[in-house]
Amino acid sequence: MNEKKNEKITSREVDFAKWYTDVCKAADLVDYSSVKGSMIIRPYGYAIWENIVAILDKKFKETGHQNVQMPMFIPESLFNIEKEHVEGFAPEVAWVTQGGKEELEERMIVRPTSEVLFCEHFKKIIKSYRDLPLLYNQWCTIVRWEKETRPFLRSREILWQEGHTMHATAEEAKEETLRMLGVYRDLQENFLAIPVIVGKKTEKEKFAGAEASYTIEAMMWDGIALQNGTSHYFGNGFAKAFGIQFLNKNNELETPYQTSWGVTTRMIGSIIMVHGDDHGLVLPPNIAPTKVAIIPIGEVEETVDSLTKELSEKEISYMVDRTDKSPGFKFAEAEVKGYPIRLEVGKRDLENGEVTIVRRDTLEKQKVAKEKAVSTILELLPVIQKEMLERARVRRDSMIYEASTYEEFLDHTRKHNGFIKTRWCGDEACELKIKEDTTYKSRCIIREVEDGKCVCCGKDAKYEIYFGKQY
Amino acid sequence: MNEKKNEKITSREVDFAKWYTDVCKAADLVDYSSVKGSMIIRPYGYAIWENIVAILDKKFKETGHQNVQMPMFIPESLFNIEKEHVEGFAPEVAWVTQGGKEELEERMIVRPTSEVLFCEHFKKIIKSYRDLPLLYNQWCTIVRWEKETRPFLRSREILWQEGHTMHATAEEAKEETLRMLGVYRDLQENFLAIPVIVGKKTEKEKFAGAEASYTIEAMMWDGIALQNGTSHYFGNGFAKAFGIQFLNKNNELETPYQTSWGVTTRMIGSIIMVHGDDHGLVLPPNIAPTKVAIIPIGEVEETVDSLTKELSEKEISYMVDRTDKSPGFKFAEAEVKGYPIRLEVGKRDLENGEVTIVRRDTLEKQKVAKEKAVSTILELLPVIQKEMLERARVRRDSMIYEASTYEEFLDHTRKHNGFIKTRWCGDEACELKIKEDTTYKSRCIIREVEDGKCVCCGKDAKYEIYFGKQY
Repeated sequence: MNEKKNEKITSREVDFAKWYTDVCKAADLVDYSSVKGSMIIRPYGYAIWENIVAILDKKFKETGHQNVQMPMFIPESLFNIEKEHVEGFAPEVAWVTQGGKEELEERMIVRPTSEVLFCEHFKKIIKSYRDLPLLYNQWCTIVRWEKETRPFLRSREILWQEGHTMHATAEEAKEETLRMLGVYRDLQENFLAIPVIVGKKTEKEKFAGAEASYTIEAMMWDGIALQNGTSHYFGNGFAKAFGIQFLNKNNELETPYQTSWGVTTRMIGSIIMVHGDDHGLVLPPNIAPTKVAIIPIGEVEETVDSLTKELSEKEISYMVDRTDKSPGFKFAEAEVKGYPIRLEVGKRDLENGEVTIVRRDTLEKQKVAKEKAVSTILELLPVIQKEMLERARVRRDSMIYEASTYEEFLDHTRKHNGFIKTRWCGDEACELKIKEDTTYKSRCIIREVEDGKCVCCGKDAKYEIYFGKQY
Repeated sequence: MNEKKNEKITSREVDFAKWYTDVCKAADLVDYSSVKGSMIIRPYGYAIWENIVAILDKKFKETGHQNVQMPMFIPESLFNIEKEHVEGFAPEVAWVTQGGKEELEERMIVRPTSEVLFCEHFKKIIKSYRDLPLLYNQWCTIVRWEKETRPFLRSREILWQEGHTMHATAEEAKEETLRMLGVYRDLQENFLAIPVIVGKKTEKEKFAGAEASYTIEAMMWDGIALQNGTSHYFGNGFAKAFGIQFLNKNNELETPYQTSWGVTTRMIGSIIMVHGDDHGLVLPPNIAPTKVAIIPIGEVEETVDSLTKELSEKEISYMVDRTDKSPGFKFAEAEVKGYPIRLEVGKRDLENGEVTIVRRDTLEKQKVAKEKAVSTILELLPVIQKEMLERARVRRDSMIYEASTYEEFLDHTRKHNGFIKTRWCGDEACELKIKEDTTYKSRCIIREVEDGKCVCCGKDAKYEIYFGKQY
């Protein structure tokens, strides 16, 4: 086992925030530039995003969605059509005011999200019930003028997808909202190995202009929440503001119902912060761009060639570190990069016909006959995937605390990070008080309840709810 | 045959520009919005782009390139580092001057291209000869503040890819420049069925900051050129301006050599303008999102089901028009959309066990036994692909004219659109005079010559060159 600390990486226990940025840099995921608040996503980081895109894009298409591309600019007057929406976004947008040598007649924002662009288009193309449901998605970049930024988590520029759909009935739109939340959950749990809590945002935390916002909340290694995807039911507020109408089967005009939903490169941040350790990144096999790192030690080209041939046949991605660095250095590099499996092919081992397989998630080593290396890897990959999810779930669950009194609530916030599962009356005043007293925000409402008392005011509770600190 | 003119589409002969925008709209490729100069790429148009992306991305990766993502903004001071580059782009960029409520200390441009961002990054990550070649590509959106815009051809916002590579030697960089031009040529000829002329841009027409720019030039149906892709050799001008250096094998500092190359959604414009006709779009099978449009006529569900099952098994994409429109209307719609093959499944034909197959490119009809429908389609698709390229080549070649005197040159420009193949001394004054007299610009230099005279000044010619009008 390579127990030596990686010198490029601060320990998680010492400074989690520093650990995080160290891993982002050391694993070659991102770099900085003179563009403040934006990041360069380097090939290894971008390859993770490409895998996420491929998985989701397939799921979106299977569920009947089509990709489109809207302009990246929004004229101020168009953006102003839906009031709540404007108020929510205005403080954090970038403004284009000049084109070529000329001052623009109307200034434009760089899209922070594209609801208004989709609505303007929908008004033109939706005429009849035959045009519904209209199921669109867009892969693009958005801009939000954040003051404090961190790679993947909070950046002025974000890669994301935004689904925008229109439906004949409220019920169908609500179903879509939850369907896509389910797609996100599947991605997170079965590919990213991140257990998530699915729920509804409070009125205070919901998306600007939405009637209901749903969220999937992940917990990072340090007990702090990351909102890892949202899905919004808009009712027909935007549709009314934009005058979108369709003729139903009885030839009567109706207003359609709308959803939008999105996930971003922030998910890469959550992969890092859920699974990473002091050696660096740990990637779940189902999302890792490279599943196996082969480290040749000595003159072992023949064996490496036959192994890579076999890996290719089985469609297992690999890299071979043929640099002139020392084995120890190469091991450390493979650990920093989080390749799920390290395959050490050493001259001495080969004398016994063996190679060494090291799991990145547990750092467990085993020697196997070289003929069994690839079949062992094939067996290990799904085991690693499953155990990473389970390990993350166990850790997450160990940091979910319950509170039935405000004293208990405060006590938890003083003792440890984590989610606090409790009950709430539904009153925004209590939500605000909790935030003021503890910095904890509501994560999501899990269910409606008819018993119990609000943890803050002691009145009858309406909801079971999670609170937590957030990135 | 459906000989009736599509009423939504102006005839090519009457007004080619109007025909073009009519097809873009009628085939549901694009829509307009209140964002002036930008287009909405609708699902059908975007699906063509997705196919292009998939083909190129695979080729880029096969040739060792990795995808990255740079910021979309460029601070003014960073953009100003390479002089010629700034001068080339400054008149046509969009400026972000405000973020949130605050005026920016340094205004930023929305990237019109990303050379300077890549160079700043390369300076940080290139240290040694071991880091070279560095082969990067980026899929993204760029902005150029055009005054007059047309869907796909000239838009304020453009989807594209930009390759950026660094090499230890000038020779390797030049090889890369031509290799990627070859990749583009393969895409255009073998997938888009567009014959191209490959050559070098003159000093006047080359990319701002490049040492040599290569181009692939396509000719549209009306004889006007479209530059369908460029590949630039930069020498080490940018690298010097940015102070990029590497240690060679002898531990000496050297400056690396650079390339960049790109293609855009403009290629979709060329597909339309090379192959389209008065019935609408005509898509080459190798790029068509949907290869077969099935039109059921009467109660024929059973046959349609068995045909779609067979098409799925053979992985041939199809759509079935089950709307309640009339057959004639559906035929016209399938033609507008340019599906390579229309498969009419009619009750009357089925009494004889037959279905009707119509080629979109020639509008030729044939009846075949329904059992042979799918095998016939499988045979037809590559034939259509090949014949579309040949037909485009024949038309293109018929509009390449030769001129050895200026009188001949002027005569061609007065009589017909097209390319003029001629000889040139290499003097910019002649190039400018030709442009002034005729609006014809140099398209590309084909080769150096040691005989013949310049078509303009009569001095010794240095180059064989094409001139033409351009989109």
